[in-house]
Amino acid sequence: MAEPTEHPTLEVCLSPALLHLYDLSQKIVVVIDVLRATSTICTALYHGAQKVIPVDSVEKCMEIGRQLGAVTAGERDGHIAPGLEHGNSPLEYPASFIRDKILVLTTTNGTRLLHMAKDAEEIIIGSFLNLTLVCEYLISRKRPVMLACAGWKDRINLEDTLLAGAIIHRIKTHFDIQCDAALIAEKLYEGTHKHLMHHMQQASHYKRLIRHGFEKDIAYCLTIDGAAVLPVYRDGAIELA
Amino acid sequence: MAEPTEHPTLEVCLSPALLHLYDLSQKIVVVIDVLRATSTICTALYHGAQKVIPVDSVEKCMEIGRQLGAVTAGERDGHIAPGLEHGNSPLEYPASFIRDKILVLTTTNGTRLLHMAKDAEEIIIGSFLNLTLVCEYLISRKRPVMLACAGWKDRINLEDTLLAGAIIHRIKTHFDIQCDAALIAEKLYEGTHKHLMHHMQQASHYKRLIRHGFEKDIAYCLTIDGAAVLPVYRDGAIELA
Repeated sequence: MAEPTEHPTLEVCLSPALLHLYDLSQKIVVVIDVLRATSTICTALYHGAQKVIPVDSVEKCMEIGRQLGAVTAGERDGHIAPGLEHGNSPLEYPASFIRDKILVLTTTNGTRLLHMAKDAEEIIIGSFLNLTLVCEYLISRKRPVMLACAGWKDRINLEDTLLAGAIIHRIKTHFDIQCDAALIAEKLYEGTHKHLMHHMQQASHYKRLIRHGFEKDIAYCLTIDGAAVLPVYRDGAIELA
Repeated sequence: MAEPTEHPTLEVCLSPALLHLYDLSQKIVVVIDVLRATSTICTALYHGAQKVIPVDSVEKCMEIGRQLGAVTAGERDGHIAPGLEHGNSPLEYPASFIRDKILVLTTTNGTRLLHMAKDAEEIIIGSFLNLTLVCEYLISRKRPVMLACAGWKDRINLEDTLLAGAIIHRIKTHFDIQCDAALIAEKLYEGTHKHLMHHMQQASHYKRLIRHGFEKDIAYCLTIDGAAVLPVYRDGAIELA
């Protein structure tokens, strides 16, 4: 039985609807929305975007887009939202398009979670695309950590839980884990990571995206270290650390 | 990829704080609070208790106890609550004591969840102690199922998630599962069930109970089919089906 140690704590919150149970004020929060907000954010910044501004409504997205001459993006029910220019697919943001631009992004789950975590000491963006950098950063900072999963409309989802498990699997010896959700996420990852894409095919959001033709997005979003940057959310915008 | 089938749905809710996301009105809800409310309920009824009345406060427990001449039980912070006679340990309720009596029980998490599920078509009580009967019943009824975990103060816990996984593992071919929490619970169970007690030692509630001297309770509560009854919650009381 692992006794409490001098290591900082590591916890996992599997749904935004549970985030109020935790005090985030002294913690580094890793916001996780694998399909696809945090994967798209990592990709845009990796490809040279100046910054990403996450907003919670289509109206705000259009307004800020006009003010800043920025690229506006967001989907509702699997289609580009009326009034916006682009979707949530990370594959829409190659360097040839997004370099030096500002991206204003509205997503259903990830954006909302970013705003909910505003009391945190730091907020960073996690995806499989920047897994190694996130892990190295968390180890180096020696601060309490909360892995916050966006889920789907407050329901727990497979892909975000898997990424939480992947992070824990890599960094657990540096942290004091007294959180059952963290144990669950890690066990899930250990049992499935050798056939990640196979297990993903059972996920509800996989089926949703496939119906809308986003099969390539899923394979890309599961690519470990495919867009190795460390995005930080600060003062309403996400930029490289 | 599993396509939707004609089978009834099976979902899992890992925290009472997420239960509002689901419509329970057409469903059989299995209330799960392994450590220890639902294990104690199964045990008392298996040992001949007339019924168990779950209440949400110590005051109500005392009042109903007086009215019915019933046994009153409940703990707060690991000790018998002031004003009540017994604790939440299933081992306090052998047949020699509880046969033909009414037990009024107040617990922190399980009782609250029973009341939250009141809109369900049916509510049954699940524990490892009655695993096989619960599974057989759910298969026979051919109705949509929600496995509702009590958790700990709205946080997800290991033992309730494990039991949900154990149920799914046994009955999944009879149901249409489009719920990521169900996939997660089942994978967790598949990866740990050969060494259940070992994995339980990492659980937060295990550590809490050990500190209060309840080690025997835990081993008992993980005993598959140790108290093979099917308790049903109806009109404010729990009785055998």
